[in-house]
Amino acid sequence: MWGIELRYKAEVSLARQIFLSLKQRILAGEISQGEALPSTRELAKGLGASRNTVCEAYDMLLTEGFIVSHQGAPSRVAAGLHLTTKKKPVPAAKKQEQAPILWDFKTGQPDLSQFPRQLWSQLVHAAANTLTTQQLEYSGPKGYEPLCEEIAHWLLRSRSMEVKPEDVFITSGATAALHLLVNILNKAGHAFALESPSHPGIRTVIADRGYPLQWLLVDEQGADISTLQGKNVCAVYVTPSHQFPLGGILPAGRRAALLRLASEHDFYIIEDDYDSEFRYTGPPVSPIYSMDSSHVIYVGTFSKTLFPALRIGFVVLPKQLQKSWRHSRNYMDVQNPILEQAALTQFLHMRKMDKHVQRMRRIYGEKRKVLLNSLENTFGASVQQWGDASGLHLALCFQEMEFGKQFVHDCRDAGIRISLVTQYCPMNDHHKDKLLLGYGHLSHIQIQKGIQALYEFIAERA
Amino acid sequence: MWGIELRYKAEVSLARQIFLSLKQRILAGEISQGEALPSTRELAKGLGASRNTVCEAYDMLLTEGFIVSHQGAPSRVAAGLHLTTKKKPVPAAKKQEQAPILWDFKTGQPDLSQFPRQLWSQLVHAAANTLTTQQLEYSGPKGYEPLCEEIAHWLLRSRSMEVKPEDVFITSGATAALHLLVNILNKAGHAFALESPSHPGIRTVIADRGYPLQWLLVDEQGADISTLQGKNVCAVYVTPSHQFPLGGILPAGRRAALLRLASEHDFYIIEDDYDSEFRYTGPPVSPIYSMDSSHVIYVGTFSKTLFPALRIGFVVLPKQLQKSWRHSRNYMDVQNPILEQAALTQFLHMRKMDKHVQRMRRIYGEKRKVLLNSLENTFGASVQQWGDASGLHLALCFQEMEFGKQFVHDCRDAGIRISLVTQYCPMNDHHKDKLLLGYGHLSHIQIQKGIQALYEFIAERA
Repeated sequence: MWGIELRYKAEVSLARQIFLSLKQRILAGEISQGEALPSTRELAKGLGASRNTVCEAYDMLLTEGFIVSHQGAPSRVAAGLHLTTKKKPVPAAKKQEQAPILWDFKTGQPDLSQFPRQLWSQLVHAAANTLTTQQLEYSGPKGYEPLCEEIAHWLLRSRSMEVKPEDVFITSGATAALHLLVNILNKAGHAFALESPSHPGIRTVIADRGYPLQWLLVDEQGADISTLQGKNVCAVYVTPSHQFPLGGILPAGRRAALLRLASEHDFYIIEDDYDSEFRYTGPPVSPIYSMDSSHVIYVGTFSKTLFPALRIGFVVLPKQLQKSWRHSRNYMDVQNPILEQAALTQFLHMRKMDKHVQRMRRIYGEKRKVLLNSLENTFGASVQQWGDASGLHLALCFQEMEFGKQFVHDCRDAGIRISLVTQYCPMNDHHKDKLLLGYGHLSHIQIQKGIQALYEFIAERA
Repeated sequence: MWGIELRYKAEVSLARQIFLSLKQRILAGEISQGEALPSTRELAKGLGASRNTVCEAYDMLLTEGFIVSHQGAPSRVAAGLHLTTKKKPVPAAKKQEQAPILWDFKTGQPDLSQFPRQLWSQLVHAAANTLTTQQLEYSGPKGYEPLCEEIAHWLLRSRSMEVKPEDVFITSGATAALHLLVNILNKAGHAFALESPSHPGIRTVIADRGYPLQWLLVDEQGADISTLQGKNVCAVYVTPSHQFPLGGILPAGRRAALLRLASEHDFYIIEDDYDSEFRYTGPPVSPIYSMDSSHVIYVGTFSKTLFPALRIGFVVLPKQLQKSWRHSRNYMDVQNPILEQAALTQFLHMRKMDKHVQRMRRIYGEKRKVLLNSLENTFGASVQQWGDASGLHLALCFQEMEFGKQFVHDCRDAGIRISLVTQYCPMNDHHKDKLLLGYGHLSHIQIQKGIQALYEFIAERA
């Protein structure tokens, strides 16, 4: 009756089915404005349902304003319920078929097979069992305070950085930190100064917001500070321990110059310390933050040392930025989830982090050796590595060669995924002779065979 | 020697101690530019350390550019390392002492004592044990796909909403969703239209970015759509199931009108369905999304149904917005952490969510009854509640009274935390006769005594 078919033993109640059915027909215009619905008794009889069920359905229609009812008169369809003719749905974009990747030299991927899964599982379970009810509530934008303390201790042990827990703010990873910093540091008429080449993370956030950008060219020692227009800048973003992607260490002289400019023109230095735990020929490089913290924001992450899907990082903030950070965080994602913050706190406290990083440093160091040997055995002297012996990627300079987008494409068709340094340059015209290889996630065999495949591919093109 | 004192059996190595000590003295200007350091042999002898240790320290200084060395000559301090005189640190703001809160009617706080802690702990543990290595990697901005499917099923069961998993995107909570939506929906020359009164969440994001705002006045039936300037608007933000804070249900006629306008002027409707699971006098209200999804973004959260520190929510997006959402999310916090997404998936799959929500609905319903009885027994007919019987808060109209900031202040001094509806109005001049009480987190006794205290406080002022 009335085109309503009831399904018994369905997850949706009978009353709801009646309600939805009538609602749909009203919206479709099949029951017009002002038209009377059958009485509840009549419809109940016709559907073989109880009168209560139909009354419930009519109540829902009334509550939501689909029908109007007057004492003693039949319920009628309300006015103004017609909708515009639906447009054709946008067809889903067809996925392009691509050749499978056999040798994947993508950057930024740690070796997750080595992550201490069982330990993490125990810590997470213990944290879930010991959290108080209050810890399930909103706790504010700074982060779990015991984690801030453990991070401060960790920074002292691993980087000889003296940091106060009150200045440590937990983030949802480095990208989230940069997103927030762009929010709070932007100043009308002032630019953000970035290295060229540099990682597209912060650049995209800035460009999307339409803020001006300035570029600092990069040489073997990192960013060339001498070209910095200090007075027109609100913040400078640098990777001074291991320039991404070219690998230079910013020397103390340039750091001091940058700090003097920051003080003079009152801008901030965003120090992104993305892979400093993994240095193979000596201890980690001191951060700029340790020289002078008054104008430096130190950005750290656990994505590479632990795992990317954890989404925990931190910033160390100068006091004068902390209030606006809290405000901005409150209106972004509010705070980090509590559980894995608590687990990470224990992981640091028990010195498991130290042990894990030490082990991974050895493992990555060996992979790097294998990579360098493979390059030596194939390309020999025609390839030169750039940068400090650290991190999970390598910048390679190929003498007298030029790489462009076509090369990446053809490489991909040959099953090799690789990046160009030039892709990280905003003008796309520097460092065309350099490739970027990530190797942290590859096995020794994959590295050897991948380099062999790359060598053969390049040789064939020549 | 050289003012260096070594600490043995410290967590920092001897070489590092020497390095840090010399570095500090160089930066402080105590060892000048160009000055020669002692030979490694000399310093080693003087400190009683091994020569290797001192060489290691000098290597660090060289690597970081604090010293320069020439074959056969002593190492000398590099040029340009002086820093500007440090400014005085900003003193931390003194915290204001405030009277303790005895009766806290803050809104938005669920009753966390009822959260199934043990079950959650088991689910989290199981998830940690069963995640694959690949799941620890970056998995993209959409979210854990099995969770998207379970949410789609849950929406059908709980709201009779038909939603495709491919249109469900996981968020870090409703605020993060709104933050992202402001990012992707803003259009030059177009305003965001919000209800007045409304929650400050999205308003603050929009105002911080400097985008224009338009206001829709709110009556007992929710937003008054008739004042909407459709052609100058990029998005309209509404709480149609239970207007926050006044509680009206937006009737079908106004919904249809809003949808027609959205279609005609190509703007989006952001439907924030923040507490729809908790309706006490009937089933949940149908969302606007169910009438016509082409221009509607449905925003949901698990903060109230589960716990705020979980930080998981979702949006259901029209297809044409999905690409820009993915882009924006990639440059915000990238993705949600994987672990609790997996736990939540199971929680939904096992129908534990249904059971929990049903139980909480009963518990909150009882608290609401206690609140209404207490109001009846104290204020009687001089107070009138506004809005539908749902959610974790109540808007109360006090006949012939006017509340302002002073009232809130004095209330606070009397140990009562309460909000004014007028605080949620941008012009702060509407609904001055209404108070807002949150009660979800309070016990029956606390509700009764709190209302008694409020009554006595108001009576005393009169």
